[in-house]
Amino acid sequence: MRLDHVGIAVKDGDAAADLFARLFDLPLDFRRSVPDQGVKVVKLRSGESFVECLEPLGPDTPLGKFLDRRGEGLHHVCFAVPDIRRALADLRAKGVALIDETPRIGAAGLPIAFLQPKSTHGVLVELVEKP
Amino acid sequence: MRLDHVGIAVKDGDAAADLFARLFDLPLDFRRSVPDQGVKVVKLRSGESFVECLEPLGPDTPLGKFLDRRGEGLHHVCFAVPDIRRALADLRAKGVALIDETPRIGAAGLPIAFLQPKSTHGVLVELVEKP
Repeated sequence: MRLDHVGIAVKDGDAAADLFARLFDLPLDFRRSVPDQGVKVVKLRSGESFVECLEPLGPDTPLGKFLDRRGEGLHHVCFAVPDIRRALADLRAKGVALIDETPRIGAAGLPIAFLQPKSTHGVLVELVEKP
Repeated sequence: MRLDHVGIAVKDGDAAADLFARLFDLPLDFRRSVPDQGVKVVKLRSGESFVECLEPLGPDTPLGKFLDRRGEGLHHVCFAVPDIRRALADLRAKGVALIDETPRIGAAGLPIAFLQPKSTHGVLVELVEKP
């Protein structure tokens, strides 16, 4: 699996992305709201990987609660896989608890799934299918 | 700048690295203790990037205090730069507070430096020089 991106929880996605873009010379990939996930994503390119600035669409969203509990900072890491259904079946067989038992469509229009952090030393891991 | 790696704070670096290697098919790069930084690093390859499992060498190290305060999970993100002294001067000029005003040598034998998370939305950012 290949490191695809890191996600950062922030109060203001545009402001954080502007700062990261300016400090680290990361060009904008896209900015998009995903209402069913309660998040606005501002995505920056970093070499062959990405940095996602994630702003909650409200205080009662999962990300809003994360921000309230932990404050701004690193939120998740994402690995790219060629076949996400096969990867999820393999992880389930290895005893990993899944947040998403079946893939859903992420902000970039690709199939994604999250794993339970309790299975991965407190790290929230996302998979994204990139053939 | 290019996303080089993410660092994960864990209680047992070998156990965590073994798990991540097994779950996500990440080959071992190296394992090494860095006494002056109070940390044992078990580094895995992930495409052109890396995942570092970081175990504190004691409870009074910076990482030991982080673990005590936040528990296991994502610790930092690292960007590779061609010239770290130039990058630090540029970031300083842009108002970023630095943990390391001058580079020091990291676990991989390359010049590294950390930035103050208060300057980057709570994210602990490391730079590593890779010409």
